Amino acid sequence: MSIQIPRGTQDILPGEVEKWQFIEQKAKDICKRYLYKEIRTPVFEHTELFQRSVGDTTDIVQKEMYTFEDRGSRSLTLRPEGTAAVVRSYAENKMYGQTVQPVKLYYLGPMFRYERPQAGRYRQFVQFGVEAIGSDDPAIDAEVISLAMELYRELGLKKLRLVLNSLGDSASRKAHRDALIAHFKPRIGEFCEDCRHRLETNPLRILDCKRDREHELMSSAPSILDYLNDESRDYFDKVKKYLEDMEIEYVVDPTLVRGLDYYNHTAFEIMSDAEGFGAITTLCGGGRYNGLVQDVGGPDQPGIGFALSIERLISALEAEGVLPPHEESIDCYIIALGEKAMDYAVPLLQEIRREGLSAEKDYMGRKMKAQFKAAERMNAKHALIIGEDELEKGKAAVKDLQTGDQEIVPLENIVDFLIRGK
Amino acid sequence: MSIQIPRGTQDILPGEVEKWQFIEQKAKDICKRYLYKEIRTPVFEHTELFQRSVGDTTDIVQKEMYTFEDRGSRSLTLRPEGTAAVVRSYAENKMYGQTVQPVKLYYLGPMFRYERPQAGRYRQFVQFGVEAIGSDDPAIDAEVISLAMELYRELGLKKLRLVLNSLGDSASRKAHRDALIAHFKPRIGEFCEDCRHRLETNPLRILDCKRDREHELMSSAPSILDYLNDESRDYFDKVKKYLEDMEIEYVVDPTLVRGLDYYNHTAFEIMSDAEGFGAITTLCGGGRYNGLVQDVGGPDQPGIGFALSIERLISALEAEGVLPPHEESIDCYIIALGEKAMDYAVPLLQEIRREGLSAEKDYMGRKMKAQFKAAERMNAKHALIIGEDELEKGKAAVKDLQTGDQEIVPLENIVDFLIRGK
Repeated sequence: MSIQIPRGTQDILPGEVEKWQFIEQKAKDICKRYLYKEIRTPVFEHTELFQRSVGDTTDIVQKEMYTFEDRGSRSLTLRPEGTAAVVRSYAENKMYGQTVQPVKLYYLGPMFRYERPQAGRYRQFVQFGVEAIGSDDPAIDAEVISLAMELYRELGLKKLRLVLNSLGDSASRKAHRDALIAHFKPRIGEFCEDCRHRLETNPLRILDCKRDREHELMSSAPSILDYLNDESRDYFDKVKKYLEDMEIEYVVDPTLVRGLDYYNHTAFEIMSDAEGFGAITTLCGGGRYNGLVQDVGGPDQPGIGFALSIERLISALEAEGVLPPHEESIDCYIIALGEKAMDYAVPLLQEIRREGLSAEKDYMGRKMKAQFKAAERMNAKHALIIGEDELEKGKAAVKDLQTGDQEIVPLENIVDFLIRGK
Repeated sequence: MSIQIPRGTQDILPGEVEKWQFIEQKAKDICKRYLYKEIRTPVFEHTELFQRSVGDTTDIVQKEMYTFEDRGSRSLTLRPEGTAAVVRSYAENKMYGQTVQPVKLYYLGPMFRYERPQAGRYRQFVQFGVEAIGSDDPAIDAEVISLAMELYRELGLKKLRLVLNSLGDSASRKAHRDALIAHFKPRIGEFCEDCRHRLETNPLRILDCKRDREHELMSSAPSILDYLNDESRDYFDKVKKYLEDMEIEYVVDPTLVRGLDYYNHTAFEIMSDAEGFGAITTLCGGGRYNGLVQDVGGPDQPGIGFALSIERLISALEAEGVLPPHEESIDCYIIALGEKAMDYAVPLLQEIRREGLSAEKDYMGRKMKAQFKAAERMNAKHALIIGEDELEKGKAAVKDLQTGDQEIVPLENIVDFLIRGK
């Protein structure tokens, strides 16, 4: 019986993987210009990290984590998101003591959530994200947002909507929380069990409920924007001003709360408005997380970041039809006839490749015609034809497969000839 | 309390990650020339895949796997190596039907083994590997070996030893197996419990035992090379001839068996002979695995591949002192004085970065002197100085931090000026 790929995951194969390579290279290029440096953390962390950072009452921690015990009975969890581990590493490696501040990092790698598989949603998915830790300048909030927008822009996406909110500082959040409790409490019996529980533990999460999203109390719920204190409002105004200065359009949506507990002040999502993109329109989400470094055991340092899924990005590029076509060709295909020529081709191939050219030969015992066919399939620029005759005369025929021109070239000059013709 | 990284894993931080990026880019470049294309499989697979492929009686499967049940009670395992998943994907996606044959793939990603952590050995480690599936031409064995050697060579390693063996075809292996049983059986009581068990299930694994490696019967055990039938011997001779044609030195070691069950015919390891490299000298291991595709449920297609750990590669590069130094600089640092200039710098920074330049500003509310210091620390080529005065006059000072030269440039020409001076 054949063994299949685990449910909700995917293989990324040649033909498809080039899209990923292209996007990832673009993301890395932008990070270089914005001075965000790569960090790589393990695929799993101590479960406690996510309980403390993402939050015990979130859907992610309660329902979606891949948690297991290792052979030493430690509870480990495949990371469901990237920020917690970066912040853990920041604290553990005392990056707050580095001379260059803020610490600007990016990551690119697989994340894991046990969700119901559906179009565009996988249990293993790849996130690209950045984190800027150590500054509470609103200009860095604007920079982080602009980096995400710039990536989409340079990849060619046009139908984007940046949605912005402020969750305020802890005093503002406390005032809003009290208002939410007062709003929902009288009719909490009409809500799902999770929401009834959330009322006590984390009423903000009610606004994020998938089951009760249509309840009339949802749209009339008190807006966080009405509970921002002066400091929080000034902060938010500054972020908006910087976005305007950079000509980045946005809409403010006070219901945007994000599904993670650690956000405060700036929260944002970038959505695709492309037709046919599907029900899940969020491409990117992020926000400020002052306090999170302390939550995982570090000093009190502010931070902001975002994460975006490469899977969704590819879907959006496809929906807008802006993915560049992937064209492939190789520099040379060696067509060898007879055992001696076949043997001769092995070190020759190595020599050609060593000069930086892409080259291939037959490994299937094919006849001449089939070898020519293989060269054409691989879109080879040159075919190098070696038979026993040619070998004895110390020569080979080099055929330009675009023009059809053929030349006889001494074997010792073959590599030079190919380099010139590249 | 602070949360720490899981035992046996590591963060790869800026300053260190550049080595990884450099090596990985080199590996990808070589694959491009050799026509191996990237494949990405999930981090976990059904546990059964590894039981069937790596082998039920191996240390990896018996002692070292991270196995867990997901929320749907499926037994999943974090991949301990890369070949099984690639072969699973090859069969599942019917790659044997593709027009270009053999199918040549590479992968690069984290693998997981629950081993005792020690210098250079991690529970999560990164492997780069290639697989060529669909051809049993000995020239492809030589190509796979040469690709690994070429990577090391181009990275600058010199103290390498390629160790080669043949495990033969199944008839040869059967004859050798019988000879091994006859050899060990009379004195099997002197061996560890695992080996006593191995005698019945898989006597070849005895040669691989870490506990009994000093037993006198080990060195006198029958050599597989004495049991190769004519076909297997011819195959091995061909592989060796091709390596010689490519001027790749090797030694034959009949005790080389590799810790995985799926190998036959060609098996090889590449070791570092660099002084101070440590006890684990194997950098790369690989071999032929005809039959494996069928084991995971596909048609009978031959294959060969290798895997190498990036961690060990870095250790070897360090032991030979051939890692290129990592030097960093940025194109421009904006030194802004006063609130207006600070605000002005935000969209200017975006404009500069959009032109492909790397640029930074202060986000820490620093005074001028400290901003200059930050520019120097980041090794900026140019400092752009904007004060309230300059802003009013529509000009900025651009200082070349290498020469110390300073010029006054109109604000609207700043970006052009920087591009020219890059």
